[in-house]
Amino acid sequence: MTGSSVNAKRLLGRLLELGSIGRDDNGRLIRLAASDTDKLGRDCLTSWMREAGLEVAVDRIGNVFGIWTPSGAAGSTKPLMMGSHIDTVINAGIFDGCYGVLSGLEVIETLKTGGFDPVRPIVVGAFTNEEGVRYAPDMMGSLVYSGGLDVDEALATVGTDGSVLGDELARIGYAGTHEPGFMQPHAYVELHIEQGPLLEREGVAVGAVENLQGISWQKVTIEGDANHAGTTPISMRRDAGLAAARVITFLRERAKASITPTVATVGRMEFEPNAINVIPSKATFTVDLRDPDEDRLLAEESALAEYLNKLAAEEQVTISTERLARFKPVAFNSNIVAAVEVAAAARGLKSRRMTSGAGHDAQMIARIAPSAMIFVPSIAGISHNPKEHTPDADLIAGANILLDVVRKLTASED
Amino acid sequence: MTGSSVNAKRLLGRLLELGSIGRDDNGRLIRLAASDTDKLGRDCLTSWMREAGLEVAVDRIGNVFGIWTPSGAAGSTKPLMMGSHIDTVINAGIFDGCYGVLSGLEVIETLKTGGFDPVRPIVVGAFTNEEGVRYAPDMMGSLVYSGGLDVDEALATVGTDGSVLGDELARIGYAGTHEPGFMQPHAYVELHIEQGPLLEREGVAVGAVENLQGISWQKVTIEGDANHAGTTPISMRRDAGLAAARVITFLRERAKASITPTVATVGRMEFEPNAINVIPSKATFTVDLRDPDEDRLLAEESALAEYLNKLAAEEQVTISTERLARFKPVAFNSNIVAAVEVAAAARGLKSRRMTSGAGHDAQMIARIAPSAMIFVPSIAGISHNPKEHTPDADLIAGANILLDVVRKLTASED
Repeated sequence: MTGSSVNAKRLLGRLLELGSIGRDDNGRLIRLAASDTDKLGRDCLTSWMREAGLEVAVDRIGNVFGIWTPSGAAGSTKPLMMGSHIDTVINAGIFDGCYGVLSGLEVIETLKTGGFDPVRPIVVGAFTNEEGVRYAPDMMGSLVYSGGLDVDEALATVGTDGSVLGDELARIGYAGTHEPGFMQPHAYVELHIEQGPLLEREGVAVGAVENLQGISWQKVTIEGDANHAGTTPISMRRDAGLAAARVITFLRERAKASITPTVATVGRMEFEPNAINVIPSKATFTVDLRDPDEDRLLAEESALAEYLNKLAAEEQVTISTERLARFKPVAFNSNIVAAVEVAAAARGLKSRRMTSGAGHDAQMIARIAPSAMIFVPSIAGISHNPKEHTPDADLIAGANILLDVVRKLTASED
Repeated sequence: MTGSSVNAKRLLGRLLELGSIGRDDNGRLIRLAASDTDKLGRDCLTSWMREAGLEVAVDRIGNVFGIWTPSGAAGSTKPLMMGSHIDTVINAGIFDGCYGVLSGLEVIETLKTGGFDPVRPIVVGAFTNEEGVRYAPDMMGSLVYSGGLDVDEALATVGTDGSVLGDELARIGYAGTHEPGFMQPHAYVELHIEQGPLLEREGVAVGAVENLQGISWQKVTIEGDANHAGTTPISMRRDAGLAAARVITFLRERAKASITPTVATVGRMEFEPNAINVIPSKATFTVDLRDPDEDRLLAEESALAEYLNKLAAEEQVTISTERLARFKPVAFNSNIVAAVEVAAAARGLKSRRMTSGAGHDAQMIARIAPSAMIFVPSIAGISHNPKEHTPDADLIAGANILLDVVRKLTASED
């Protein structure tokens, strides 16, 4: 049938074209939120939206929407929304976020050209500041859109460069007038590269993302005594570095002994005084705990707290913790997840249910609408890196699954 | 009998006076080797030597000697030598080194005034650049004196401030003409604060130092993969930080399971990229291993190397090591050590045989003469710190033990 598959050449061409915008003198892709290069990316996206005959709407936090309201859909009907983001990290790859936005646009154009007549409007959104590099927190545009953060508070955010987000949005011409949340989605579907290694390793083309991990970030500070490495017997040491090392091995042993998908990471570590012949008096490090189940995440936090208490006594050190971030896990809508599996099977593609290990705009929109995500393989799991890559065939397959799921969700009133 | 004890008031007064020389605007004691403040300290010391009727001799590396050649001792007889150093670290305490030098001077004055007639000259030396802060290596003056480093090579050393040691010694007036090693000691005794916690914790006044630990310093670099903390399953990680933590806990478990005095310290640690949500791709750290027995130190080095091989395979990481320093253990002269114990017992003081965990000039002079050290307690083991402290009674007791041992070693021709 007409419109049964997306226009592969157009989609791949747009990914390359958008990926060429915002390169610095060293060829690095940098489109930080509300920057001059973000403006160039937005201008490109909105021109494609207009060429496709979509209405372009921008809300006060700068989220950009391309809206297709077909003749058969009443203006008041809740739209089916697709989306992601086009802001990037520093020295980014070209797929993170952009793939979801451009595929959403591609899906609308394919359906429109193919004469499909949906029962509700279909919208593709590009949310402001998903990456959170210039302004904290990340996923800001979708968080504001779903009512999780006041828009005026968000606009007052001061960036790492001293700029104010609201001023910058106005400067680049993307301070819109719509109130965030002005369209209540009927459902939300986000297509994204996995940014992890599972699909590629298992040779699976499509991830039907059923949930998104909860995240617990803590900073742990351990204080002992800085004594001479040569003259202090082992039994008299209060070694903050040793205690920190024991936390790392504890977390790994616990994860390995468990059958749950819990992941724990110690990514940052600082010793003081950090001298070769001085026992560390202080070790400061971060613990990143993630689990798709809130009860298990709470249990992991408790187990860590209990271990730190025991450790403090055993090693005669002082331990304090500070919470840096905490997000509950998000369960996606099971009907949409099932629709992704059905669509993959119908196209003869292998799929698997999976958890998102990273944060996405979908976790915010899930607060206000039934939501789910579709993942495609990331080669070697690499992301936030110019080496980020997904083969063309996988990109097209993912866009076609999105097409099928959106068609299903807009074909009838259910 | 006359001269049975040192002049406590004079010794304590000189310690305070020398400790007041070389203070910066913030009151920090800083007499780095061959600096302007080192000159002031040397001037003070040599004026006291001259007042005591000693001949002052300076060798080419700047070592300063106060020589008492009594009427009964032929000029050619090998002298009994005491010594230590008066250069300091940045923000030093007043006892490290200075206590040994000033006690040596005090012992000579006490014996001289008391009418003692030794069979050989008695010398007190202050060796150049023991601390090694401005010029590497540390213990330089005694190393050159014992023939372990060529004097011209040492004089050409460029300091952390770009200065050349030989130029600086000439500038401050302490580039002497004697060849290092010009006096071959009959024996060498060095009195020093412990710089460790053992004597204070055990309530023992005198340490009879029978050996000095060998030191092995290595830098270890572990390389893995920087992947996303949320999307990379535990089983697929190549986590350099975890591998580094396992080395620390391995070393501690090995030390705790052993009955040997081996100490192992990981004092420096750096993670890369050192980001909260990225698995560390690189961990760089130092391992400081010490043992008074060379065979055991070699065994510890082998055990670590073997563990690193096993770890590299288990964690799928790449590990490389670089040797930063290696000194063999030094065994001191058992007769002198026994003399220290006898002297302590005779004065009703508790003593214990012990190992020096830190490096000292005595380990260099032990290459050319029977040598030993006497330790007195350091409160809480603190040193290289303005809080460095030893109670007056312990300082005087230590000086009296030095007095007794020197009297014994110079009373007859044995």
